[in-house]
Amino acid sequence: MPSAAILLADGTEEMEFTITYDTLVRAGVACNSAYVLDPTDTGTLRNYATCSRGVRIMYDAVFQAEQFGPYAYDALIIPGGAKGADTMSKNPAVQSLVRQFLKEDKIVGMICAGSLTALTSKLDRQPLTSHPSVKAQLENDFVYSEDPVVVSNKLITSRGPGTTFLFALQLVESLCGVAKKEEVRAPMVFPDS
Amino acid sequence: MPSAAILLADGTEEMEFTITYDTLVRAGVACNSAYVLDPTDTGTLRNYATCSRGVRIMYDAVFQAEQFGPYAYDALIIPGGAKGADTMSKNPAVQSLVRQFLKEDKIVGMICAGSLTALTSKLDRQPLTSHPSVKAQLENDFVYSEDPVVVSNKLITSRGPGTTFLFALQLVESLCGVAKKEEVRAPMVFPDS
Ligand SMILES: [Cu+]
Repeated sequence: MPSAAILLADGTEEMEFTITYDTLVRAGVACNSAYVLDPTDTGTLRNYATCSRGVRIMYDAVFQAEQFGPYAYDALIIPGGAKGADTMSKNPAVQSLVRQFLKEDKIVGMICAGSLTALTSKLDRQPLTSHPSVKAQLENDFVYSEDPVVVSNKLITSRGPGTTFLFALQLVESLCGVAKKEEVRAPMVFPDS
Repeated sequence: MPSAAILLADGTEEMEFTITYDTLVRAGVACNSAYVLDPTDTGTLRNYATCSRGVRIMYDAVFQAEQFGPYAYDALIIPGGAKGADTMSKNPAVQSLVRQFLKEDKIVGMICAGSLTALTSKLDRQPLTSHPSVKAQLENDFVYSEDPVVVSNKLITSRGPGTTFLFALQLVESLCGVAKKEEVRAPMVFPDS
């Protein structure tokens, strides 16, 4: 059974997190959400993340780099939401894990502002997409695309809430194959199906 | 500012809940999630719902009919997920509220298996859709449609996770107007936009 670590932080876009998590679970992927702390938040540790539009989601574990390495998971997923993606992309342990996953030929998914992590992790110049609001920060260092989902070897990037189903289904295809993707897709009742 | 009560239960489809809640918040709708207890669950009351694919979402309030009437909210939303929709659709207070909202010309939204609540609330024969898996239970009593979203006066129904964005955007249009819908839609970056 493939496995995925999905990062979660205060300010994460709850649709991007939830669509990805749920779709991967439908495909039989063992998902673990890892809460990345905002270093400027000096309050007591809560057992949930307050997402970008107020949905409060309980995390499965607190993020600790040594427990979320590529030896333990087949994919590392970084959702968007400006504030959540800021916390994740500026976290040195997250940046290091992104490089380790790709070095070990494991999948890294980034969506929306989450794609900023490609920049902060100093990934090689390659095809990538993101939310339009952060395009200006990425287009000099990457081969910027406006496709809904961009697959560059094991780096899979996407644009926003409206492309998250396509992103999640691409992750399913990459982790479980195209037959599993079709099996998962059908009962979700997309308008064109 | 329009307001919406969005029901939540153990087994609710977390994508349907989260996409609807988040999209309405983006439109400036004040959303309150109301946890409907499974009467067969005799354990201690938790402060979250365990959704259909394991995402645990904290609710804003415990559902009590007297606090969620049409005098207090402009819309009542019933998401799917087989187990969650079963709990909601069989709850007599929910059934009564559905009838009250429609009688007061307020919006009622149902998606996926949530549409079974139209049947249990004994609504008049009218156009409606649902997840294909519960079509057989609905097609004798309603004018069953396979459109992604069906608007029948104030009853708005839809099909599944893959149609939830369309459902949520129709709710925004009905509550806030078409200009607000377009304003909310653009930054969500749908593939065809
Ligand atoms: Cu469903």
